[in-house]
Amino acid sequence: MKIAIIMGSDSDYPIVGKGVRILKDFGVEVETRVISAHRTPFKAIEFANNAEKNGFELIIAAAGKAAHLPGILAGISILPVIGLPIKSSTMDGMDSLLSIVQMPKGVPVATVAINGGENAALLAIQILSVKYPELKEKLKAYREIMIKEVEEKDKRITKISRDE
Amino acid sequence: MKIAIIMGSDSDYPIVGKGVRILKDFGVEVETRVISAHRTPFKAIEFANNAEKNGFELIIAAAGKAAHLPGILAGISILPVIGLPIKSSTMDGMDSLLSIVQMPKGVPVATVAINGGENAALLAIQILSVKYPELKEKLKAYREIMIKEVEEKDKRITKISRDE
Amino acid sequence: MKIAIIMGSDSDYPIVGKGVRILKDFGVEVETRVISAHRTPFKAIEFANNAEKNGFELIIAAAGKAAHLPGILAGISILPVIGLPIKSSTMDGMDSLLSIVQMPKGVPVATVAINGGENAALLAIQILSVKYPELKEKLKAYREIMIKEVEEKDKRITKISRDE
Amino acid sequence: MKIAIIMGSDSDYPIVGKGVRILKDFGVEVETRVISAHRTPFKAIEFANNAEKNGFELIIAAAGKAAHLPGILAGISILPVIGLPIKSSTMDGMDSLLSIVQMPKGVPVATVAINGGENAALLAIQILSVKYPELKEKLKAYREIMIKEVEEKDKRITKISRDE
Amino acid sequence: MKIAIIMGSDSDYPIVGKGVRILKDFGVEVETRVISAHRTPFKAIEFANNAEKNGFELIIAAAGKAAHLPGILAGISILPVIGLPIKSSTMDGMDSLLSIVQMPKGVPVATVAINGGENAALLAIQILSVKYPELKEKLKAYREIMIKEVEEKDKRITKISRDE
Amino acid sequence: MKIAIIMGSDSDYPIVGKGVRILKDFGVEVETRVISAHRTPFKAIEFANNAEKNGFELIIAAAGKAAHLPGILAGISILPVIGLPIKSSTMDGMDSLLSIVQMPKGVPVATVAINGGENAALLAIQILSVKYPELKEKLKAYREIMIKEVEEKDKRITKISRDE
Amino acid sequence: MKIAIIMGSDSDYPIVGKGVRILKDFGVEVETRVISAHRTPFKAIEFANNAEKNGFELIIAAAGKAAHLPGILAGISILPVIGLPIKSSTMDGMDSLLSIVQMPKGVPVATVAINGGENAALLAIQILSVKYPELKEKLKAYREIMIKEVEEKDKRITKISRDE
Amino acid sequence: MKIAIIMGSDSDYPIVGKGVRILKDFGVEVETRVISAHRTPFKAIEFANNAEKNGFELIIAAAGKAAHLPGILAGISILPVIGLPIKSSTMDGMDSLLSIVQMPKGVPVATVAINGGENAALLAIQILSVKYPELKEKLKAYREIMIKEVEEKDKRITKISRDE
Repeated sequence: MKIAIIMGSDSDYPIVGKGVRILKDFGVEVETRVISAHRTPFKAIEFANNAEKNGFELIIAAAGKAAHLPGILAGISILPVIGLPIKSSTMDGMDSLLSIVQMPKGVPVATVAINGGENAALLAIQILSVKYPELKEKLKAYREIMIKEVEEKDKRITKISRDE
Repeated sequence: MKIAIIMGSDSDYPIVGKGVRILKDFGVEVETRVISAHRTPFKAIEFANNAEKNGFELIIAAAGKAAHLPGILAGISILPVIGLPIKSSTMDGMDSLLSIVQMPKGVPVATVAINGGENAALLAIQILSVKYPELKEKLKAYREIMIKEVEEKDKRITKISRDE
Repeated sequence: MKIAIIMGSDSDYPIVGKGVRILKDFGVEVETRVISAHRTPFKAIEFANNAEKNGFELIIAAAGKAAHLPGILAGISILPVIGLPIKSSTMDGMDSLLSIVQMPKGVPVATVAINGGENAALLAIQILSVKYPELKEKLKAYREIMIKEVEEKDKRITKISRDE
Repeated sequence: MKIAIIMGSDSDYPIVGKGVRILKDFGVEVETRVISAHRTPFKAIEFANNAEKNGFELIIAAAGKAAHLPGILAGISILPVIGLPIKSSTMDGMDSLLSIVQMPKGVPVATVAINGGENAALLAIQILSVKYPELKEKLKAYREIMIKEVEEKDKRITKISRDE
Repeated sequence: MKIAIIMGSDSDYPIVGKGVRILKDFGVEVETRVISAHRTPFKAIEFANNAEKNGFELIIAAAGKAAHLPGILAGISILPVIGLPIKSSTMDGMDSLLSIVQMPKGVPVATVAINGGENAALLAIQILSVKYPELKEKLKAYREIMIKEVEEKDKRITKISRDE
Repeated sequence: MKIAIIMGSDSDYPIVGKGVRILKDFGVEVETRVISAHRTPFKAIEFANNAEKNGFELIIAAAGKAAHLPGILAGISILPVIGLPIKSSTMDGMDSLLSIVQMPKGVPVATVAINGGENAALLAIQILSVKYPELKEKLKAYREIMIKEVEEKDKRITKISRDE
Repeated sequence: MKIAIIMGSDSDYPIVGKGVRILKDFGVEVETRVISAHRTPFKAIEFANNAEKNGFELIIAAAGKAAHLPGILAGISILPVIGLPIKSSTMDGMDSLLSIVQMPKGVPVATVAINGGENAALLAIQILSVKYPELKEKLKAYREIMIKEVEEKDKRITKISRDE
Repeated sequence: MKIAIIMGSDSDYPIVGKGVRILKDFGVEVETRVISAHRTPFKAIEFANNAEKNGFELIIAAAGKAAHLPGILAGISILPVIGLPIKSSTMDGMDSLLSIVQMPKGVPVATVAINGGENAALLAIQILSVKYPELKEKLKAYREIMIKEVEEKDKRITKISRDE
């Protein structure tokens, strides 16, 4: 179980890192790279072209503004590509989102929410779980923890609200 | 290899059907359903709750406007859920897109382009191909055909343009 | 007179709490809960399914981003559901608003302004006042106070402006 | 059980009329009026000022563009006001929606989807059902019919898709 | 030469005040009021209805969110109404702008930029100058000062840039 | 009483013409011109520079897309400039609206609704009426007719609705 | 003087063709190609990598939706790249525009208006004219014709308007 | 090799200055000016009219809000004009972008990203490089440095991620 996370800029790491930690917790091997579709296009092409051969099973690609990285990787590799739109200093992430999700017919990118670093990781795990059943159990356990957390918040807020 | 396609309204079928035909061409078994998150919520819940048990390996969910279907299925099932935003009569599909892609932390939906019926199917095939290597070959063949088509268009347009 | 306020995340409470205080001032019994349509979907379903039986007369549901909570509750319960869109860290609340207000035919959600915690409460009171005439008097008194406040601001600003 | 439907322009009737028919089917008495917040403001004020006295229990107000009608009525009457944004020839209804839903603190409008004529009516019925239990039974029956319709579409589409 | 400035909330004064000072510099008599279309609708109506009679020659109306104040005043009075959209805490002022500018046929509002307090005042002066020629001279002098200021900035920046 | 209407393209005339007819009905002398800020900039400059001298009392400027015409005229002439945003084939008029209304400090443009040809004319008349009292009477008569029209529509729709 | 026009899809030709004809009229040699950044990425890379060597002096790239073609070519070649956003069936061209114009630091794309086929060509000619002075004369002549056309429209509309 | 950078306001210099430094590094002579299309229109006209004669080979024009400066210069001069949209305090730069990029047929502006000061400079250099081959070498060297920088970030992030 090995995946790649490519980001267009090292400034995306605060978002991407949240996903890295989840993937490691699930026992997924991660290789994290900074490769720019615009500044290092040949690196991007070479990476995508060899990704399958190099044992990666899917790619997460994070990028902001005119975010071409996920689409370019998806056009070269047939591995599933998860697109993670990063919010930059203008446009509130709308440019990143539309640049990633609105892919033309033939080359999809599996897009998650703007700045959704955790969800990119969880989607990767769900996709891998189609093949690796052990991940399914871990996903169920993860959801149980989420449920617990919400339930605790539920109790706390119910009490606070009662005391208003 | 079996997947489910759920759509919120039968009026989504002109878009969804494009994906059905691609999936069948790739030899993926498809069950197509009309289940509304709002009008038949218990059907939606029951479907999601039993999807894994019933042998589905992933779910494509198509919906328009305040498009909750993909998110609801994804909150119940741990199968990967592909969200297909449908353009309705107002808002140019922006409401559908944001309702599907902007999922909160913990429950991702793999979103494709507005009205991207073919891409939802191709993403499903790419995800299945992680497990089923035979799909990888078919995907490569599919891309070869795409390349041929673009090359033919390239020749035709180059000629038309020369003759202007 | 008893209503439920459900929020998708405890981080919504700073907005929701403003409404809780208004409802209490009007003598409406409030039960406040944290239930997520995505993280605790079965809680959401169970709550909605029993809301009428449990004596609630309407539901306020607050949520952000791909805000499905109000719509899901409205699809299950026939009680009036007031949707309160919460502004999150991207999209300025537009995603929350469209996810809540653009409900398909058959299942309405009574949507108020982004972050409009007070207005969700006041709308709940207006709806209850259809049945409970004593609330009408309180609403009129509340408006009288609002008028007084505006009139005082009017005097103050008129003076400040005169002195510029 | 009597409500008023006010629209800003007679050109809104194709949308509004869908709601009128639903309300009549539910046995709700409806008075439908064309009153413009801008062109006949005194009519609007007079209407709102006397609505409660004249036996109306709630108001549906439909308007497009800079849609002030629902807000003006809500500022004068304490009856619940349902706002129905109408899509006009520019802006895809976004101007109507924001003009209606983004009401300031103190005066809420219960906003439904752009062009959601049926949902405005159904929300009105849900609000009235808080007081009139007989409407609850009718709402449940209405939902049963919706479920049947979706189930029939489900069967039809499942078959069409199987035959692709 | 007397005009009225009405604002929907005293929190608009930091923007409105910039205009007040310009108007006073030009010798225009200003009466500044806080009147809310929603919270004090009868004050708004009364004001608009008597504005001409009370010697006002035009009205500036500032409001945010679902900004109905300018439109309501314009629907009652035939005086020219200048609409000043105020940016509030969500939507970046787009809701205020569309609520003010997208007036239906028959009742225009002369809309200026979001938070354009100075421009609302200058437009008022330009409108008054149609009648009062002395304002034309002052406007020309004001523009001369603007030109001077830009020219000084021009020199300063040219120098800074040369020294980079 | 003489005003100028400048439009950026002759394709704007279907919208502009509606205003021309209203102005003539009110007895305002109109000179209508096609002058482009981009294609005939010197004509635009010359026109603006001489507008006051040539007896014009205000200018209506209509333009679409990156609509600079109103702003350019307003930067040169001190006459009030009414900006009329024209909806073009993309962007639903949002580009035209923002290009016209978002003028920087110092040079306002009195902006009306997208494609609001009639309202541009009526605003011009309201501005002129500050100087010419006879227009005030005509404006009041015009509003009386509008009221009549709405009242007739009111009766008609009330009846149609009753008969549903 | 030789340039390349690359479009992502042959369906872009109705827009692109308008530019081809202008370029030919100015005596610029044009090679027009259909190359997709997503469907034929290696063609795109190869083209960009050899564009300078093959004698092209600049590149026009037209694309719609998640429009990556201009950015990818610009990341590989140092030739100036003009980006032409094509309006597709959803989003009114906003996705195309943002995907092209919002390029990150280091790799600019010279973006023109949505569907601005003629302007892409004229910008190419202006850029070439920096090197080839003969184009400057032709550009001036072209502008003279534009001026004539506007002047004729001016006369025609002035007359039509006078006769209303 | 001489170019002009015109900005509408001295407050744009923090963005523009980034470009000035790049241009100087490339050995391009720069004259930087503050000229407002609205506040000093005659300066703008005069500048554009004489730009070619004064030895400028292209113009960069930066402006915010209703950003007319690039379009006005482009309408007068036949030099290539690069438009640099500046983000102002409202609208997140969308107003500036649309006002600059959506130029009508006949007069293009080469638009770069919102606040893209560096990219405006780099595009200018690419355009000049069509004529001056020495710039091509410098551009290639610049890109080599960019590649190095990304590669160093790549190594650093890969390591950080491995250590999570």
